[in-house]
Amino acid sequence: MTIPLRLGLAGLGTVGIGVVKIVQAHAELIARRAGRPVEIVAVSASSRKKNRSADISAYAWEDDPVALARRGDVDVLVELIGGENGPAKALVETALANGKDVVTANKAMLARHGQTLAEAAEAAGRALRFEAAVAGGIPVIKALAEGLAGNAIRRVMGVMNGTCNYILTRMESTGLPYETVFEEARQLGYLEADPSLDVDGIDAGHKLSLLAAIAFGCQVDFDAVHLEGIGAVSIDDIRLARDMGYAIKLLGVAQMTGRGLEQRMTPCLVPEAHPLAQLQGGTNMVVIEGDAVGQIVLRGAGAGEGPTASAVMGDVIDIARGLRLPVFGQPAAGLVAAPPAAVSAAAPWYLRMTLIDKPGALARIATALGDSGISIDRMRQYGHEGAHAPVLIVTHKASSDDIRHALERFEDTGVLVGAPVALRIEDV
Amino acid sequence: MTIPLRLGLAGLGTVGIGVVKIVQAHAELIARRAGRPVEIVAVSASSRKKNRSADISAYAWEDDPVALARRGDVDVLVELIGGENGPAKALVETALANGKDVVTANKAMLARHGQTLAEAAEAAGRALRFEAAVAGGIPVIKALAEGLAGNAIRRVMGVMNGTCNYILTRMESTGLPYETVFEEARQLGYLEADPSLDVDGIDAGHKLSLLAAIAFGCQVDFDAVHLEGIGAVSIDDIRLARDMGYAIKLLGVAQMTGRGLEQRMTPCLVPEAHPLAQLQGGTNMVVIEGDAVGQIVLRGAGAGEGPTASAVMGDVIDIARGLRLPVFGQPAAGLVAAPPAAVSAAAPWYLRMTLIDKPGALARIATALGDSGISIDRMRQYGHEGAHAPVLIVTHKASSDDIRHALERFEDTGVLVGAPVALRIEDV
Repeated sequence: MTIPLRLGLAGLGTVGIGVVKIVQAHAELIARRAGRPVEIVAVSASSRKKNRSADISAYAWEDDPVALARRGDVDVLVELIGGENGPAKALVETALANGKDVVTANKAMLARHGQTLAEAAEAAGRALRFEAAVAGGIPVIKALAEGLAGNAIRRVMGVMNGTCNYILTRMESTGLPYETVFEEARQLGYLEADPSLDVDGIDAGHKLSLLAAIAFGCQVDFDAVHLEGIGAVSIDDIRLARDMGYAIKLLGVAQMTGRGLEQRMTPCLVPEAHPLAQLQGGTNMVVIEGDAVGQIVLRGAGAGEGPTASAVMGDVIDIARGLRLPVFGQPAAGLVAAPPAAVSAAAPWYLRMTLIDKPGALARIATALGDSGISIDRMRQYGHEGAHAPVLIVTHKASSDDIRHALERFEDTGVLVGAPVALRIEDV
Repeated sequence: MTIPLRLGLAGLGTVGIGVVKIVQAHAELIARRAGRPVEIVAVSASSRKKNRSADISAYAWEDDPVALARRGDVDVLVELIGGENGPAKALVETALANGKDVVTANKAMLARHGQTLAEAAEAAGRALRFEAAVAGGIPVIKALAEGLAGNAIRRVMGVMNGTCNYILTRMESTGLPYETVFEEARQLGYLEADPSLDVDGIDAGHKLSLLAAIAFGCQVDFDAVHLEGIGAVSIDDIRLARDMGYAIKLLGVAQMTGRGLEQRMTPCLVPEAHPLAQLQGGTNMVVIEGDAVGQIVLRGAGAGEGPTASAVMGDVIDIARGLRLPVFGQPAAGLVAAPPAAVSAAAPWYLRMTLIDKPGALARIATALGDSGISIDRMRQYGHEGAHAPVLIVTHKASSDDIRHALERFEDTGVLVGAPVALRIEDV
């Protein structure tokens, strides 16, 4: 009861300082809930002198984060450095090898090395927890791996990159083009140092691959995530989609199909009555569908000091309480390498294109669709822009293969101006 | 690893049969996730012969459910009988006394006897888990007691009675009056045998009192929940609220204030942009506000075979995995008896009344408000119905005491026709 749980904290950026603040502000509350005090004993970061919004003077300092993992007075290593290789990975490996439990927010590292690290953690009999790696403050790992453990999971979906959702909703509310809003987001500090992590869906894809591993009992396979970023989404598409009752979201979807595991992170249309469509700004949402529970929707802040630190502390308190689970909810040795589904499940698609304005142009497109086995649900032709005719088509259900085939045939028609846009309409 | 966890299942109604189906359908999946097989060994229900949608012939039968709690081959007693006293309570007490863990969906029992039962469970060193008692399939107890354990909780809110939400949203979509939709709901089997449990907010109040105990570390105190049912909500109120940008929900709110613990389950107006306002039909939603995490929203099915059984199985799998937490997230002996707040936190209010149509009537109402220290934000007077003038007022922030005082003064004015309606506008 009175033996404290001692943390070594690597990384004193936004999240690390958030953790320091919670441990300091809620020492008594956490001790009551965890059944024992939780203390920080040592910290490490790139600069000791930096001005920080929390007092770290009471903690031992290590210049080398890996030294934290070797300290005899550290029970739990909290890794908040980030990065898929380099010091973070060495640190986690060393901590596990030295019998420490590990809590991390590092989605990139786990998406790349999750299986190896999970095997190492389980061989060492230690916890490796990562609630903070997915959807910030939303306790989604816990919901999926624990609360809904009685369900065969059918599908996991999520809007899990707040920056992309900010850009898309800001484009809609202001009518400004992608490039302008992207620049705004950069100036507001919303973008990663490498913005492609955000806007190309990489960061959100990392998160999706972790959820998929838990949901379907398979090895993390980030390389199999089909990624499409939001750079090709135009303000026209956002408006046309809204006209038809949809919102465009960078939506991650993972599901196990007869053809293998489907994982994709792509801009999708979702019906505007669904909570996913109503998600504004940087908020995250994860939707879990289980065979018994039906659809569970979880919403909350996807990033930031407090929310991410809250997730870290949830994991720390679990460890203090003695909770020890396999890293991905079942023993790592038994996780299967699921074959990736080459073709995604059939869905209606939104197709937007510009045609040269001459007789028979639309007929050629319709024929190309028909030849690809795709039937048309709705079609709209808009007022001409000079010699060009914007056309919008919503198809009946078609596989991604059929759509790819149709897009290739469109090229052969010789009536297209520029590239057509094809966005999946997800049945949520 | 291979020692099975053996369940004794008391109650084979909708939820009990749901549990049987999950255990039978997902034996292999659950064993992998739980680290050991989960088996049902014995069952009990009021009638052995009843036709059921699952095969229970492989399980031992007990006519007396309490006998389940004494069987040497039962590790976990799953109590799905319901009722705040009687066999359910005796069964749970006997199970704990005999060293069994207990999983229950019984909100009424816990709302009344939660403190005593938690003390008994903790004295016996056993788990007493109740995820299924609150908001059906939504893993809200787990989110609050575990995932968000690093937060000081500011407020917990919820729409937690699907029948009431069905009635309110059906009134709005059809324009039918409360009495008609109530009768529809009864014929559809949506109502409890005693409908007042639903429409008077008792069932939802039970759930709120359990969430409050976990959130604020206090003893369950259902008697302190201020209850108002939905029977007084008219179709006029629903429409007028919508006109002003609000939806009316039977909303539970628990928060710790300087004046004590505030718990109320009352019809409230919520702004239509919030997910709470968009909740249709029997779906449940719980909103948790923590100082670090901000606002977390959880949505899912609040009742039914699959969702409730999913929650039961989440608890069972936690026990199989060896998770042992204090019943309300911290030791029962340390839970404080929080003084109930006599007056609720200040909020804007919606007031609707009918006045006799004579000069000065409205002035008298405005004066009564002013004398009660309440200022008016918006007021609308509608077209007269004969000699009566319907009036709608939205106040600036006022305490429940001020509103009660104003309503008493309204009576003295002699210009009211019938009773005024006063609904709180919750700042969500």
